Amino acid sequence: MEPWQLTASAAAARLRDGTLTAEALTRSCLERIAEREPVTKAFSYIDPVLALSNARKVDKAYAKGILHGLPFGVKDMIDTADMPTSHNSPIYEGLRQGRDAACVAVARGEGAVILGKTDTVEFAAGGRRALTRNPHDPARTPGGSSSGSGAAVADGMLPLAFGTQTGGSLIRPASFNGCYGMKPTHGVVNSEGAKRYSHTLDTIGWYGRAPEDLRLVAEAFRLFGLDIPLGKPLRQLRIGLCRGPNWDVAAAESQAALLLAGQRLDAAGVAVEALELPAPFRDITEAQRIILLGEGRGAFLGEYLAAHGLLHQDFRERVENFAGITPAAQVAAYDLAGECRKLFDGLFPGLDAVLTPAAKGEAPVGRQDTGDPVFNSMWTLLHVPCIGIPCTTGPNGMPVGVQIVGPRFGDAALLDVAALVAPVIDPAR
Amino acid sequence: MEPWQLTASAAAARLRDGTLTAEALTRSCLERIAEREPVTKAFSYIDPVLALSNARKVDKAYAKGILHGLPFGVKDMIDTADMPTSHNSPIYEGLRQGRDAACVAVARGEGAVILGKTDTVEFAAGGRRALTRNPHDPARTPGGSSSGSGAAVADGMLPLAFGTQTGGSLIRPASFNGCYGMKPTHGVVNSEGAKRYSHTLDTIGWYGRAPEDLRLVAEAFRLFGLDIPLGKPLRQLRIGLCRGPNWDVAAAESQAALLLAGQRLDAAGVAVEALELPAPFRDITEAQRIILLGEGRGAFLGEYLAAHGLLHQDFRERVENFAGITPAAQVAAYDLAGECRKLFDGLFPGLDAVLTPAAKGEAPVGRQDTGDPVFNSMWTLLHVPCIGIPCTTGPNGMPVGVQIVGPRFGDAALLDVAALVAPVIDPAR
Repeated sequence: MEPWQLTASAAAARLRDGTLTAEALTRSCLERIAEREPVTKAFSYIDPVLALSNARKVDKAYAKGILHGLPFGVKDMIDTADMPTSHNSPIYEGLRQGRDAACVAVARGEGAVILGKTDTVEFAAGGRRALTRNPHDPARTPGGSSSGSGAAVADGMLPLAFGTQTGGSLIRPASFNGCYGMKPTHGVVNSEGAKRYSHTLDTIGWYGRAPEDLRLVAEAFRLFGLDIPLGKPLRQLRIGLCRGPNWDVAAAESQAALLLAGQRLDAAGVAVEALELPAPFRDITEAQRIILLGEGRGAFLGEYLAAHGLLHQDFRERVENFAGITPAAQVAAYDLAGECRKLFDGLFPGLDAVLTPAAKGEAPVGRQDTGDPVFNSMWTLLHVPCIGIPCTTGPNGMPVGVQIVGPRFGDAALLDVAALVAPVIDPAR
Repeated sequence: MEPWQLTASAAAARLRDGTLTAEALTRSCLERIAEREPVTKAFSYIDPVLALSNARKVDKAYAKGILHGLPFGVKDMIDTADMPTSHNSPIYEGLRQGRDAACVAVARGEGAVILGKTDTVEFAAGGRRALTRNPHDPARTPGGSSSGSGAAVADGMLPLAFGTQTGGSLIRPASFNGCYGMKPTHGVVNSEGAKRYSHTLDTIGWYGRAPEDLRLVAEAFRLFGLDIPLGKPLRQLRIGLCRGPNWDVAAAESQAALLLAGQRLDAAGVAVEALELPAPFRDITEAQRIILLGEGRGAFLGEYLAAHGLLHQDFRERVENFAGITPAAQVAAYDLAGECRKLFDGLFPGLDAVLTPAAKGEAPVGRQDTGDPVFNSMWTLLHVPCIGIPCTTGPNGMPVGVQIVGPRFGDAALLDVAALVAPVIDPAR
């Protein structure tokens, strides 16, 4: 087995006991990248000399951090002090920032080897797509906007990578690429240094190839409650199976994946019960759209004024409020979100997690359509932690995942639930 | 009259009709700065050659923007592409970022002359204080954390400057220094490129020397509703006089200022009515503290790991959760805030604005105590627009202001109200 094939958690154990060095793991990942990158095109910036230099610095560290020696990819709308941050925008081609984004500083501070910048949809929001292809079928999208991060982790190029989610930019690519992904509770990871689209929605998250990988990163960020074990076995879990308000638009393979995951859990002795969300959730998907577009109005005004001709029409329309969002609609959307957050949290601790679709279906064909965030956007607005888990394949042999969701700040318990249910839901585990 | 003595709105008219150039106004401000800076110490970075070069670029612009030719100060925790951003932290001394923060890009895009960086409390949050002195008495604080911005505008060094408010960092210095300040609705101005402390609270705002100055900046940011006139005269206004839940801790001069402002309005024919906030507001000040400390836990983790020895004890305590904030308390605080936002908005349109104290009292003596945010923090959490208006002086001859507050997204109407009530409340206008 080559080092690049190790999950982050397996590699971390060897890096800790000294049977693997950061340099050796980084070299192995660089070899995998050299092999796969011509097809997958996950990176917008990678310099092997710099990556190896970062690895050697980690090998010389006085102490080993939580992410010691683990190569880490950074979505190219998150600042890095040692690499350019293009946002996939012609405005910022070659842009060098003076310091790391907060999340990168934490990863680096805990010993991660920052390996390269992964391609993204322009500003993680619209406009230009990433060049990235789905590693399972290069004719298909890896999803967006965290296109390169999801594809790179799934394709074995690196064990961990940062993505972000404002609508469905993190969990959807996890489903399309067949890897694990975590969107933690909104705000627990400082998103400073990542391009702002919507302050209510933008959430930093990460990809790995096992639930334990996701947990390692959560530990680096000191998420609440990681020292408190869930304290119950698989057979004592109660899971709410939630079709959600958009079930009718799910493709057959996504509907089948959810029901299959539920059946597998049921067969393993988990109490799986159908969960109907209360009436206010009817309008929650629309509320997310209103907030996204309303906050997007101010988000790109700087670029609109400073570099109008280089700003994609998508963003000019946001600034000019083509969608016609009114203050009254935006306030109503905020207030509905507040109400639904409270209602959703009220389902716990009666449940241990909610199981719900992760994406509309398989990854679409082509590069332009990165998929629909409809099965993610409401959870982003609810600020709740979500973990994407691979489940099955669709009619074209493409991965189809599901996600589990917890209450606000229930990240640690949700990671424990993921560790228990993933081997049941994901036969590859 | 020297050009530096002009308010932003008065200068803007001359800059538009060509009777004043950006260079001439900038030179005049630089002369004023040369005279006053040895005492006031408002700037952490200023380079007259760069400032004049920025002014000349504006004089050569193809078209005149909304802020054409107006010198603008930037609080030194907001990124500027052409000047260092130190955050008043030894970690970031001399830090050069590759691009402007979003708010700076907008100001520059609308023709402002970015003049210099104004001193701030470390990370606008704690630790080291600014060196800035109150222009009315150098033995006293200008307030914090927007220390340099408030003092510089009040002292005539520049007509406009950006500040930020997470607790009371913008409106309190306006009161202490005797100038005007606006904290718009949370989120309508993109805070990307400003140091993050609390994503729920951090709000970009600005200082000027007249309500019309504040409006100019609001126009640059395309705040909602600026094209819809309020459409009523002073005598048709209804103002809620709100002592608020912290009235008992207000110094005599702040209590007197609020009542005096109410009497002046009443005498001018405004309908002033006592406003008692409903019961949930009892705990809103504490909710702000919980959210501030809870979100502050993640905000400084990057610096904590990367530069532990250079990070002030204040921030290490945030990261280590010395305050013992629990997830349950944080969630309850978010939910209370949501409830109170709805309740407060419900007061409108029955009222045109709420009139309430802007600070606990006069500016304290010394540099360490920058004053208490207790009369600001609840409004920051409510996300509502606030405008600070000078009113009177206290027992030591120091300025004491009041503030008017509107509903979320009611920024434009609040600016109209400010234009009507300021000449009544502030005898210097």
